[in-house]
Amino acid sequence: MAERFISKKNLSFLLYDVFDVESLTRYPYYADHGRETFEMVIETSFKIASGMMFPVLSEMDRQEPEYQDGTVRVHPAVREFLRAAGEGGWINATKPYDVGGQQLPNMINFAASFAFMAANYSLGVYTYLTAGAANLIWSFGSQELKDEYLPRMYSGEWQGTMALTEPNAGSSLSDVATQAEPTERGYYNISGQKIFISAGMHDAVENVVHLMLARIKGAPAGVKGISLFVVPALRGEGGALVSNDVKCIGIDHKMGYKGAPIAQLAMGENGDCRGYLVGEPHKGLAYMFHMMNEERIGVGIGAVGIASAAYYASLEYARLRTQGRRQGEKNPATPQIAIIEHADVKRMLLFQRAVVEGSLALLLQVSRYLDLEQVSDGEEKEKYHLLVELLTPVVKTYPSEAGITSVSQGIQILGGYGYCRDFPLEQHFRDMRIHPIHEGTTGIQGQDILGRKVRMNDGRAFALFLGEVAADIAAARKHSRLSRQAGDLETAAASLKEITSYMVGAAASIGAEVFLADATLYLELFCLVCAAWQWLKMAAVSSGALDAGASGDDANFHAGKIVACEFFFAYELPKSLGLLKRLGDADGLTVKVNPEMFED
Amino acid sequence: MAERFISKKNLSFLLYDVFDVESLTRYPYYADHGRETFEMVIETSFKIASGMMFPVLSEMDRQEPEYQDGTVRVHPAVREFLRAAGEGGWINATKPYDVGGQQLPNMINFAASFAFMAANYSLGVYTYLTAGAANLIWSFGSQELKDEYLPRMYSGEWQGTMALTEPNAGSSLSDVATQAEPTERGYYNISGQKIFISAGMHDAVENVVHLMLARIKGAPAGVKGISLFVVPALRGEGGALVSNDVKCIGIDHKMGYKGAPIAQLAMGENGDCRGYLVGEPHKGLAYMFHMMNEERIGVGIGAVGIASAAYYASLEYARLRTQGRRQGEKNPATPQIAIIEHADVKRMLLFQRAVVEGSLALLLQVSRYLDLEQVSDGEEKEKYHLLVELLTPVVKTYPSEAGITSVSQGIQILGGYGYCRDFPLEQHFRDMRIHPIHEGTTGIQGQDILGRKVRMNDGRAFALFLGEVAADIAAARKHSRLSRQAGDLETAAASLKEITSYMVGAAASIGAEVFLADATLYLELFCLVCAAWQWLKMAAVSSGALDAGASGDDANFHAGKIVACEFFFAYELPKSLGLLKRLGDADGLTVKVNPEMFED
Repeated sequence: MAERFISKKNLSFLLYDVFDVESLTRYPYYADHGRETFEMVIETSFKIASGMMFPVLSEMDRQEPEYQDGTVRVHPAVREFLRAAGEGGWINATKPYDVGGQQLPNMINFAASFAFMAANYSLGVYTYLTAGAANLIWSFGSQELKDEYLPRMYSGEWQGTMALTEPNAGSSLSDVATQAEPTERGYYNISGQKIFISAGMHDAVENVVHLMLARIKGAPAGVKGISLFVVPALRGEGGALVSNDVKCIGIDHKMGYKGAPIAQLAMGENGDCRGYLVGEPHKGLAYMFHMMNEERIGVGIGAVGIASAAYYASLEYARLRTQGRRQGEKNPATPQIAIIEHADVKRMLLFQRAVVEGSLALLLQVSRYLDLEQVSDGEEKEKYHLLVELLTPVVKTYPSEAGITSVSQGIQILGGYGYCRDFPLEQHFRDMRIHPIHEGTTGIQGQDILGRKVRMNDGRAFALFLGEVAADIAAARKHSRLSRQAGDLETAAASLKEITSYMVGAAASIGAEVFLADATLYLELFCLVCAAWQWLKMAAVSSGALDAGASGDDANFHAGKIVACEFFFAYELPKSLGLLKRLGDADGLTVKVNPEMFED
Repeated sequence: MAERFISKKNLSFLLYDVFDVESLTRYPYYADHGRETFEMVIETSFKIASGMMFPVLSEMDRQEPEYQDGTVRVHPAVREFLRAAGEGGWINATKPYDVGGQQLPNMINFAASFAFMAANYSLGVYTYLTAGAANLIWSFGSQELKDEYLPRMYSGEWQGTMALTEPNAGSSLSDVATQAEPTERGYYNISGQKIFISAGMHDAVENVVHLMLARIKGAPAGVKGISLFVVPALRGEGGALVSNDVKCIGIDHKMGYKGAPIAQLAMGENGDCRGYLVGEPHKGLAYMFHMMNEERIGVGIGAVGIASAAYYASLEYARLRTQGRRQGEKNPATPQIAIIEHADVKRMLLFQRAVVEGSLALLLQVSRYLDLEQVSDGEEKEKYHLLVELLTPVVKTYPSEAGITSVSQGIQILGGYGYCRDFPLEQHFRDMRIHPIHEGTTGIQGQDILGRKVRMNDGRAFALFLGEVAADIAAARKHSRLSRQAGDLETAAASLKEITSYMVGAAASIGAEVFLADATLYLELFCLVCAAWQWLKMAAVSSGALDAGASGDDANFHAGKIVACEFFFAYELPKSLGLLKRLGDADGLTVKVNPEMFED
């Protein structure tokens, strides 16, 4: 069914009206661009998304990758998409002209990625992975590595991966055990195993380039002994590509997100796997984390993409399906009404919309900070850097966690059909569930924001964030129709500040374990405040548009924004009350639980 | 992995210590039984569950039913299980001796069903459906119908179904359009279509007996014109079984719960489908709803079964999997710890446990009311009947909705493995998602409790419920270690009472639509209070056991119960604060939303 998976109108609203992406063109890096080029880029992304990606969404789910004798056969659309993305310059779109890039703002690039991910997450992820891996080489690799790998990664001929996870090193990267033995010829001999490597091997490309964490022989234990290597599946030798002794020993079969294989790799089984050091020894984790923000933001985009596709599918169903009558209508001879007329269905649709549009706004907010970091200097640059650092766990987590609930409500709107494979919702539900897991679980994100981010630089990032929120509250206060929501956000932000002080203040006396025991709940609270912030911000812009005389479809759109904002403040933000209650009791309940109490 | 899917110890604790099932044996109907027979029944159910059902859980998911030319091939285990259940007397276990039953309490029967559902929901549902259909014949059918159908349904040779849903009559049963035309020979000619009929056709039985809603020609429109019929796939004629013109025209492919087919049926395509009226004309919906409570309780049991299996699978994983170190441990040379040592993992396990054991207690509480209704008379009988009526939407919904979140947390504990098909969690997640949909969606349950149940008999059911809760609070107050939780439940129950009065009081002035707009949230609040009630009740029994000197494993078990109770009150009950805030604003926000506001 649903041909529609995103709202172009909402995307334009966010890019131009809320976040004023055009204002970036006054900086030299973006000076060649203007609204026309931005619109052209976005329009092209829609075309690829609708024409090439969305049509194979269900097929890629049903014909999942097949492993045989070291190779992995993927859907033919993967090759087609990778080449198209390479030719269109999507993989290095934000990079400088001198490496073939287009110097596009992250906001525009993320907006295009959102269209891709909404159309077909499993397909969109291939180029996203390549872009992330290429970024590492571009940022930290030698000129030789750049020359050898970047052109064919950017062209979509070669796949890039992030090869971190091992059987004993998942969330605990300090336990990476893959070995790198130095040789006199500059390269390192790599041996070990990696698991869960997305797109780690497949037949839609000539070569796969792994950006791999490994430990140089004799390196210190823990995170300080981890280095980053380029480990290609095939290496260049005498002008030809020869095997680099990276063997794909299997793939895992997943619940969803089936179009992209996750591979198990064995390196150096024949003693001939060469790795090429990126940057300096023992700095691998720092390099990886430098890129991790963008990877995590990418997860958020993938999640909101799926949630968006699910929202429009259930919205279309709710408009067309008739069932039941208005409450209080006793005459069974009257025709049934479209289910979108039922308050409970509207509530579920508003929830889906609140999650989708709130998440997307938050992601664009953070990508705007990324863009401003790129073009500014000194304290200004530091400010945007800190905001991106602080908000990365939020933009990774909120779309992922609320996204699951949101797609689940989408299923509920379809009733029995939502559970059936002839309708798209069930696939979205399965695809979505990966997001709270990969690129750092929700638990890890919680530890990150509470254990590190809100406290870093003496709380400066957190203070900057509160300043941003306060500025948007002040702007919203000019709209009397939003005064209640502005007040509610002010209260919520103050509560967040207060509970943060309380928790951080108690950290030393209660110890790290108790302090961080409810970090996941703290992050959930943070997410609610951030989503409320974005909704108030959007509603203020829409309120301005209505006051300026928006009419027809525009008036509907802006009225809808304001209602969705009211919905968020009425139904979602109050969830902060329960979280605040819990977080105010740093009693270490879970820390004290003896695992034996789970025994029978 | 996990061989374990339920806790026998917890089940015994609930049956004997918390709900004192033995006390039922003082009533004549149950007088032949005692703890020994109960234990034997439960032990036998464990054997069937572990030996016959659990081993094919994953296989039945992967080899889903296949439709071909009007027949549906199901896994061979279905035939084996149906026969075993028939021989063991499971299908009519609660029925009187005179129809071959065993006069077992519902509590024991539900406990056994819980073992079946936890082992393999798709398999367990076949007998549950037959039992429900047979109950309708037994309660309202003529002696002739009973003689013809019950023996072979009870023996597991014939499948029973509940055939309600049609393409245009899902949640809105008043729109049932299947026609029944009277004939002079007593039967009715049936014509129409049904969809989503669980076990509606399959090759593990000789015959399928549909308990079908249809409209007698000329009947009034709406619910008052619906009658109930027995419509078998094959009918007896001259000592042989011949086709009754019920054609299975296809099955739907589902996300989960794959082991049981849901069929589309066409009746009377050749003008020769005979239906046999059950009871009186036009009373079909009332008969169906008479049985609906048990069907809905059955959904709750299915949901808690799946949640239980998921809990034990993730608990086992958390015990065995090592990853990371204690917070603050900086030395990477120390060995990794089992993830069950991490506070955030313990939090997720406690949440799973809170949902599983809280739901199970609630279900046994309601089945105890069912049993007491069975054996009492007059006002006493009415009391238990009202309590069952009131709490049915709760025991259908809480295990279903919290069950989804609970299984999702189980996935999160396994991380990437939770998302992979080599581990059982992802199947549990898919299987679970059906429960908020079938036998009345969560939205329908919300309308039921707020629109009907809390107000029926001038609020008497609700008052009785509050009395039950108050009695258990009083009992818990005797345990000083539970005084905080007892106080919290008292507050929560008082808030529920207050918000109910506010909403019901406003109903007349705000109108039915606004009054019921947030019924789903009201039900969510009701569920939280009920689960807290059961946790306090269990903790009080465990507190008593500790005071009485429980030691060793028993002491661990009871200490675990008390901690899980503390967890529920610390982490879950506070969610009521956000719900109360919303419910206190009966502003009709969703009612007022114009569907056009969803347009772009």
